[in-house]
Amino acid sequence: MTTVTELFACADEASGAAVPTGRAAFDRGPLLAVTGASTTVPLVDGTSRTYANLDCAASAPALASVAARVAEVLPLYASVHRGAGYLSQVSTALYEASRQSIARFVGAREDDVAIVTRNTTDSLNLLAGVVPEGGAVLVLDVEHHANLLPWVQRSTGARSGTGRVATVLPIAETVAATLDALRDELARRPYALLTLTGASNVTGESLPLDRVVALAHAAGTRVAVDGAQLVPHRGFSLAASDVDYVAFSGHKTYAPFGAGALVGRRDWLDTGTPYLAGGGAVRDVRTDRTVWQPAPARHEAGSPNVLGAIALAQACDTLAALPAGALEAHEQALRERLVTGLEAIDGVRVARIWPDAVDPVGVVTFTVGDLNPGLVAAYLSAEHGIGVRDGRFCAHPLLARLGASHGAVRASVGVGTTVEHVDRLVAALTTLLTRGPAASYEVVDGCWTVADDTRPLVEVRGLDHLAATAAAACGPALDD
Amino acid sequence: MTTVTELFACADEASGAAVPTGRAAFDRGPLLAVTGASTTVPLVDGTSRTYANLDCAASAPALASVAARVAEVLPLYASVHRGAGYLSQVSTALYEASRQSIARFVGAREDDVAIVTRNTTDSLNLLAGVVPEGGAVLVLDVEHHANLLPWVQRSTGARSGTGRVATVLPIAETVAATLDALRDELARRPYALLTLTGASNVTGESLPLDRVVALAHAAGTRVAVDGAQLVPHRGFSLAASDVDYVAFSGHKTYAPFGAGALVGRRDWLDTGTPYLAGGGAVRDVRTDRTVWQPAPARHEAGSPNVLGAIALAQACDTLAALPAGALEAHEQALRERLVTGLEAIDGVRVARIWPDAVDPVGVVTFTVGDLNPGLVAAYLSAEHGIGVRDGRFCAHPLLARLGASHGAVRASVGVGTTVEHVDRLVAALTTLLTRGPAASYEVVDGCWTVADDTRPLVEVRGLDHLAATAAAACGPALDD
Repeated sequence: MTTVTELFACADEASGAAVPTGRAAFDRGPLLAVTGASTTVPLVDGTSRTYANLDCAASAPALASVAARVAEVLPLYASVHRGAGYLSQVSTALYEASRQSIARFVGAREDDVAIVTRNTTDSLNLLAGVVPEGGAVLVLDVEHHANLLPWVQRSTGARSGTGRVATVLPIAETVAATLDALRDELARRPYALLTLTGASNVTGESLPLDRVVALAHAAGTRVAVDGAQLVPHRGFSLAASDVDYVAFSGHKTYAPFGAGALVGRRDWLDTGTPYLAGGGAVRDVRTDRTVWQPAPARHEAGSPNVLGAIALAQACDTLAALPAGALEAHEQALRERLVTGLEAIDGVRVARIWPDAVDPVGVVTFTVGDLNPGLVAAYLSAEHGIGVRDGRFCAHPLLARLGASHGAVRASVGVGTTVEHVDRLVAALTTLLTRGPAASYEVVDGCWTVADDTRPLVEVRGLDHLAATAAAACGPALDD
Repeated sequence: MTTVTELFACADEASGAAVPTGRAAFDRGPLLAVTGASTTVPLVDGTSRTYANLDCAASAPALASVAARVAEVLPLYASVHRGAGYLSQVSTALYEASRQSIARFVGAREDDVAIVTRNTTDSLNLLAGVVPEGGAVLVLDVEHHANLLPWVQRSTGARSGTGRVATVLPIAETVAATLDALRDELARRPYALLTLTGASNVTGESLPLDRVVALAHAAGTRVAVDGAQLVPHRGFSLAASDVDYVAFSGHKTYAPFGAGALVGRRDWLDTGTPYLAGGGAVRDVRTDRTVWQPAPARHEAGSPNVLGAIALAQACDTLAALPAGALEAHEQALRERLVTGLEAIDGVRVARIWPDAVDPVGVVTFTVGDLNPGLVAAYLSAEHGIGVRDGRFCAHPLLARLGASHGAVRASVGVGTTVEHVDRLVAALTTLLTRGPAASYEVVDGCWTVADDTRPLVEVRGLDHLAATAAAACGPALDD
């Protein structure tokens, strides 16, 4: 196998370009300690290797600080918001302090409200339910399903009789032209809300938020940002950006404990009908009528995920405590190294939405010759201990637009990613294209798997097989 | 202070009744180890005491086995269902195995589907969304809001234009008369679904499920059980009871990691419109139409709470591994001891819904003379380290029916509860009624608190005050 050093020596010689991030970056370790960083996985050749998790955009490992925090507060756990027990008061205080940490992390304004949700999908469904009656919503066709379906579904009346109208605007070939199209559409009719991704989960690209917000606000339209891929990877501030709402997920923010957040303007959240009905959300209930609480309680029916919120808050606090620019520098260095490495391989094509997009986050999608993305992902896992995503990344319309309706491969980096992970991926793809895979692969039930897989299972109770994770993503209509 | 032994000696002498559970029960420790069992809390007299969590019905501490399981799997955590990375395959296998454990724990039939939700509230909201169009729903007025609001809200058209009708049937004075009323109502018009609590969160009582199921099925009506208070406390089986759906919460089942479940008949779940729209729930999306996955993926949009599901499954497995009858015996012994102790105190009145209800779970609600329940709860916490609930327990219509519209006190037991906890509560109430509180209490912002509270805070990062947990429960319209 080509070693990492040899590969980059070759790439440098061939292209004449220096590896852009230099020696210091080559030695770049993780920016923060994550749980499972030393977990090894078996390979088909009988060896094992430290797992290279290049699927952070799907779900990120827990920060070590998050795992420690959960362990710290677990013995203090008790019901929150009700009951006068000492630990209920402690747990409630920690839960509400977590809400403040989460709000602070996204630069919430004083009157903004932070609602603890399950994840970005949950946050955006919640927001979709509180847009004032009759308010039109504008969404772009580059969005992740989480920021597409809640709006489209409502507009078709499948769930409600509100008569809300969602318009899906096709993006243009460039950022500049897309901004023009946005301006035109915002002038064409009044929109209550424009909702857009802060960073594409496919390419990491985005429209310039400041420009979008200025256009929307000039038209009297609020702006919601799907921050799932943005917030964990870039400093973001509601106050500084003037964005009205932001949604993000704990499990992509190094706190995979089931909590996410929606943070933003209070008025709609204070008055909109909650989409989850139950205890805690109401002030008084008789069998003939219900008086709801204001936000956030209004939207947190049932017992909240206290530990999830505390975990997410810890992740926010840990990320916020990094030196200014460190997060961005880490990811940018890794992303540039990855893209440079990929583009140096004959046959690998890196997807871009817009040629004029700037400062993408650490998410890179590519195709590998005409190899099936499922085969590539299976090979990277089985022969190199690398985890990537393949499929359509819950962004089917965008993948169709990129000419990759049948899917692609996505590698994404995070605070636990090292240069070694990135270099291992580039080397593995080079080997794949030059020598082919060492093992045999076959499609079983529509999923690419190792033929006669002899890899042992990692030892953990309750594990008796490896799940065919592409199962839901297979068949003619790939979905992931 | 009266000691526990003295108190029960007095009670025995006064009533002539033997403490029903005898010496062995007197020594009864926890049935299972829970996290935080040895956590001590400060008292107003300057001492500290092991926390007596008698608020398990609100939220239960984590089983030690659950905490250990989360720590065990955390280093293996990766995105599930998509991507071919080895740890994604491991995490997916563990997640799906958890689904099986959860289903097995509630005796799911072979074709039943188990959906991982956030909690019971979430489960019942989900179920409310998949009842076939036009299907009428019957609900009793004893329900927790989680099993009342989703149905009532939908029937008033606040959320949907489905025209579904929910009928709230008042319960009768006895179980027998309530069953008669149910039979009559089921004959009066066709109902698609009858939804009822498996055990009241106020009194632990319930209607006999086998009788209810027989009545409903004879009328062609399905039965959903709010199992929040039943499933953690009694063996329950969908197959054996012929119940069609059961909803329950991880955080009441000793797995407070943000996951709950809805388990039951596949058909409605396979075809009903998901109330959470997003990635994973769909097979194919174009901007003009969406093709949904079947259950369970259909209802698990966004990245699932993998660790929460694994935690809940561990709790299920640990409870299922108890010797037959041990769980019921533990709780029954504690409940009987508690009720006997409470009823022996002049001025304490234990609430009952029906005189002919049998086998209640370990949830006991009572009033203490004409003392404000908030004062009682504050006293128990500040002077005895006991956590209870006060308020209306998210069951306002029932509390009104019980003549306790302004609230009551609730004590509830679990696998971590000991006889000492129960005896401490009874002794504390006796002291309260005979000597009054030692400290001064006042109402601040509508909440009962210790005047000039000198208790130190437990040491944990991020804690700078005790939250006034009754805040949401205060004012003329008490709510909890």
